[in-house]
Amino acid sequence: MTATPAATTPATPADRASDARDGTAGATETTFPVVAVVGAGQLARMTVPPAVGLGARLRVLATDPDESAAQVVPDVQLGSPDDLAALRRLAQGAAALTLDHEQVPTEHLRALEAEGVAVRPGPDALEHAQDKLLLRRRLDAMGVAGPAWAEVRSADDLRAFGERAGWPLVLKTPRGGYDGKGVLVVASLDEAAAWLERAAGEPLLAEEAVRFTREVAVMVARSPSGQAAAWPVVETVQVGGVCREVIAPAPDLDDDLSAQATALALRLAGELGVTGVMAVEGFEVPASPATDGASPRFLVNELAMRPHNSGHWTIEGSVTSQFEQHLRAVLDLPLGSTAPRARWTVMVNALGGDYPDLFHSHLHVMARDPAVKVHLYGKSVRPGRKIGHVTAWGDDLDAVRARAAHAADYITGTVDG
Amino acid sequence: MTATPAATTPATPADRASDARDGTAGATETTFPVVAVVGAGQLARMTVPPAVGLGARLRVLATDPDESAAQVVPDVQLGSPDDLAALRRLAQGAAALTLDHEQVPTEHLRALEAEGVAVRPGPDALEHAQDKLLLRRRLDAMGVAGPAWAEVRSADDLRAFGERAGWPLVLKTPRGGYDGKGVLVVASLDEAAAWLERAAGEPLLAEEAVRFTREVAVMVARSPSGQAAAWPVVETVQVGGVCREVIAPAPDLDDDLSAQATALALRLAGELGVTGVMAVEGFEVPASPATDGASPRFLVNELAMRPHNSGHWTIEGSVTSQFEQHLRAVLDLPLGSTAPRARWTVMVNALGGDYPDLFHSHLHVMARDPAVKVHLYGKSVRPGRKIGHVTAWGDDLDAVRARAAHAADYITGTVDG
Repeated sequence: MTATPAATTPATPADRASDARDGTAGATETTFPVVAVVGAGQLARMTVPPAVGLGARLRVLATDPDESAAQVVPDVQLGSPDDLAALRRLAQGAAALTLDHEQVPTEHLRALEAEGVAVRPGPDALEHAQDKLLLRRRLDAMGVAGPAWAEVRSADDLRAFGERAGWPLVLKTPRGGYDGKGVLVVASLDEAAAWLERAAGEPLLAEEAVRFTREVAVMVARSPSGQAAAWPVVETVQVGGVCREVIAPAPDLDDDLSAQATALALRLAGELGVTGVMAVEGFEVPASPATDGASPRFLVNELAMRPHNSGHWTIEGSVTSQFEQHLRAVLDLPLGSTAPRARWTVMVNALGGDYPDLFHSHLHVMARDPAVKVHLYGKSVRPGRKIGHVTAWGDDLDAVRARAAHAADYITGTVDG
Repeated sequence: MTATPAATTPATPADRASDARDGTAGATETTFPVVAVVGAGQLARMTVPPAVGLGARLRVLATDPDESAAQVVPDVQLGSPDDLAALRRLAQGAAALTLDHEQVPTEHLRALEAEGVAVRPGPDALEHAQDKLLLRRRLDAMGVAGPAWAEVRSADDLRAFGERAGWPLVLKTPRGGYDGKGVLVVASLDEAAAWLERAAGEPLLAEEAVRFTREVAVMVARSPSGQAAAWPVVETVQVGGVCREVIAPAPDLDDDLSAQATALALRLAGELGVTGVMAVEGFEVPASPATDGASPRFLVNELAMRPHNSGHWTIEGSVTSQFEQHLRAVLDLPLGSTAPRARWTVMVNALGGDYPDLFHSHLHVMARDPAVKVHLYGKSVRPGRKIGHVTAWGDDLDAVRARAAHAADYITGTVDG
């Protein structure tokens, strides 16, 4: 048989892009597309390995030449995500523009879209990951059950909500929060006073303090052509508002809850028009007489429209990692299998601690456990900063958790050996 | 339980930016070591993913800025491996210097070693991968059984060897051969005439044409501290002298042969003082009355002291890939587990064919099989050139082989769909 591959493949937007590029590339040259990434943190850094295999060329926008991804990507542009001119330069000639973090003005992304840039995820979707109030309104409009919430601009607003939902309440800045920042649990109006004052009439989001069994997350991917895929629901363990551990899949998860969470995440991806991967973080709450059915329920907490800490386990733990899938999705390539590669995969974050020489920690960690995988982000140590993570996998969950935790704690500097 | 995120600071977009800007502190800095690589082909390219995770910084010596690894490594120096000054610049400040290919003058490597550079593998070991005559002498001196061989400089030498070993014979250039180049099977003196004339008195290696059952290879790693590890023995399938397919582990391999080959490779690594990974390619030959024992035997064909095509399957197929292991070894870090991650892993090379647009082939390959992994090398298509490879894994060997072969053939342009 002879090669006629183009004739046998249905056309997609990626086809047309590649057809358009053929004219400049010459008859026997492959055009390896550029994917522009706003931001150069560890998420962009961890996108490098799959990009190398796929033949996609990354270009990152860094604010500092020594940023995590800027260390490992040849094509680095320096500039601010707030600067439209910098974003335009970044997108020049790129097949798609995507994000390492959500702190990018949507008006800039709209301007780029209007100029023909493939912004993935697009600004209309992205806003729901940027603005927690917008997300709450959208979930209500979709008829999705969630915690009671209110937009509050004053002490009066908050008092009224407190009388309805009960104290304590969770106060959130609608934009810009991450890793426990931008979240405050308040037991009274007094405890909220400083935040209300600082907000100066800008809206805050107040939520009922959900009595959850545990926190879970589900990662999905969706391509511009509309193909979608979901990984198994995972359990996330937070300490001090920062993700400490992710267990994949979530142990002893109720089948109905799993189906519920997965269906909701896929529905959100479709209705919001997400392109790329999206993490839906949420709460498992017990079944109650107040709700119909005997199954526990899944309540959405927040969204991330990019690779996310709750999906780092997929690098070793799934046939297709979240980073490869994100590239496939933003390039409108067919999505990869999300099947797990082990019975249990556990990821534990390594936070900056007392022990400054991260590379040196390899000696101990690798000697103690030749099967654990350490990912360092090329960052300097600062207390509490995420400077890397560790992944372990196997059949015995307790053993896998202990192995990952020991390695991460050693890197952090909180165990001796 | 109740949601009690402990952090109480509202976050602003500026937090993330400042998070990226603190890379200048002195006392708490990690030194992420530089590994200098002579050459910038696909082996250096595939070393990028594990380097990103380990926090090792690659620096490559390329002869062209668009070479495979130069596309994906920020720290590229242009120069020739024959130029000692270029090698010196490459090694400046590096924790170790290693190789993408063996075509590096050993006298240069000796000079670098004398100047304190950690050359891994060192020139004394490397020569055995560079010079097939030297290897044959060494194997004889070690008492390792192998094919009959002779150093020939003339028709008389070859006639004498042919009378002893029988025709046909295999004629090899001792240095510089690869992928079937530098190897000629000759049935008579006449067929060897052109090669003998061209050699002009320089020695050629003549070997008995081994009647092998199949070709197998074993990959080992050894660190400067002397730690060693071996992956399972694999079967390699050559077509026209070029590796077509690697099956891991080699199906139905005799236990004694497996132990024999593995022990020999580890012994070679130790006695030659190899640092890094080494592939030992060899032949499985049937048991015969002329030899003691009823087991088939392993005969060494040649060595590669670097990551090797026969080890590409380890990227997905083993807990530790050959590329990660090589980095760990040359940095004298503890070696990783070489356990397989699937019952069967099969790698098939994609060679340049009729179909020029490699990236486009992703559309078909990924849509047909969401679990196959394609690695493109960023090369332009030239007939017969290795431009990528495909890996598949699973429990059913026939199915796994068919999946990998179909994907590779599609990329090459020899199937329709």
